[in-house]
Amino acid sequence: MKIINPRSGTSFILSKGKKLKITDIEGEQVADLLCYNLNDKKEYLSSGRTIDYAETIFLTEGHPFYSNRSNVMFTMIEDTVKRHDFLLTPCSSDTFRIIYGHEHPHQGCFGNLCNALQEYNITPDEIPTTFNVFMHVTVNGETGKVDVLPPKSKAGDYIIIEAKMDLLVGLTACSAEMSNNYSFKPIGYEILD
Amino acid sequence: MKIINPRSGTSFILSKGKKLKITDIEGEQVADLLCYNLNDKKEYLSSGRTIDYAETIFLTEGHPFYSNRSNVMFTMIEDTVKRHDFLLTPCSSDTFRIIYGHEHPHQGCFGNLCNALQEYNITPDEIPTTFNVFMHVTVNGETGKVDVLPPKSKAGDYIIIEAKMDLLVGLTACSAEMSNNYSFKPIGYEILD
Repeated sequence: MKIINPRSGTSFILSKGKKLKITDIEGEQVADLLCYNLNDKKEYLSSGRTIDYAETIFLTEGHPFYSNRSNVMFTMIEDTVKRHDFLLTPCSSDTFRIIYGHEHPHQGCFGNLCNALQEYNITPDEIPTTFNVFMHVTVNGETGKVDVLPPKSKAGDYIIIEAKMDLLVGLTACSAEMSNNYSFKPIGYEILD
Repeated sequence: MKIINPRSGTSFILSKGKKLKITDIEGEQVADLLCYNLNDKKEYLSSGRTIDYAETIFLTEGHPFYSNRSNVMFTMIEDTVKRHDFLLTPCSSDTFRIIYGHEHPHQGCFGNLCNALQEYNITPDEIPTTFNVFMHVTVNGETGKVDVLPPKSKAGDYIIIEAKMDLLVGLTACSAEMSNNYSFKPIGYEILD
């Protein structure tokens, strides 16, 4: 298993048919996930298309994840937690400035993804809303209020996704206090045949 | 007041400080809205950033709407309906194929926006999740289930937004049966000083 250190990120290729296992090693840690069609990086993971076709904001095993072109990019095939977020953008220096009021903000998952994807010529403007693995966001159906709670994931919990096209993947160990119950931990990942 | 015919779309420039009034002329009709920074069209309206900073999925008067770069693009200053959607992507031929099972699908708001924005060199891949004015989407906070109900808007209901930067705007009279209570109607708009 490869390790993403706390408050950092990485990128890698996941070929069609391969599986990716993402593990919360210590528990209560979020991993921001996004992907692009490796052969045409203008095609990217779309929260809006995925939620629309799944008719739910809570994506879990069995759900296909769609691109902005309405093609299936991957399917989630195992999920020991069953609670993730697909509404919120990756934390960034702006998040820490606007929400947390930090004067010298961390670059966050957004900055970590920018760095990790730069070698594939992905620009910051091309980083969309991420699928926030293990992130526990509640929505009040009456008022619309969104709250960020500690993840439901415990040490060793994981998801497995299966690529339905050749993918460029970005993945982080999230940097936002609130999302990880105020303690930054690593994230594990491995590519399975 | 200018009229957008049923199942069509348009684009126009809204300069900083100008206001845009969007009117549901007959009632129960959705209008998909998106915008770009006129001077750098890689900067676009972001549902993820806006929901994150507002801490609600229901945006209404008083809320700033953010770009992917976390800049305020516009603020909603009046809202006689107070129920709109910012989760779902514009309806498209894929929507009609996947959700409705249509064999010869309409191009939808997505296709209408593509056509309307082509003259400004916006490509289809650059059309993000839209702010769906008057669209009535419910979310079950327990299960995550998303449902599309008839709009709450009645004839003459409107919103007014105020541009905080020079904007290129795309706007439609929505083409999806479910979103408009199975009757396609026009949308009115006017630019106010």
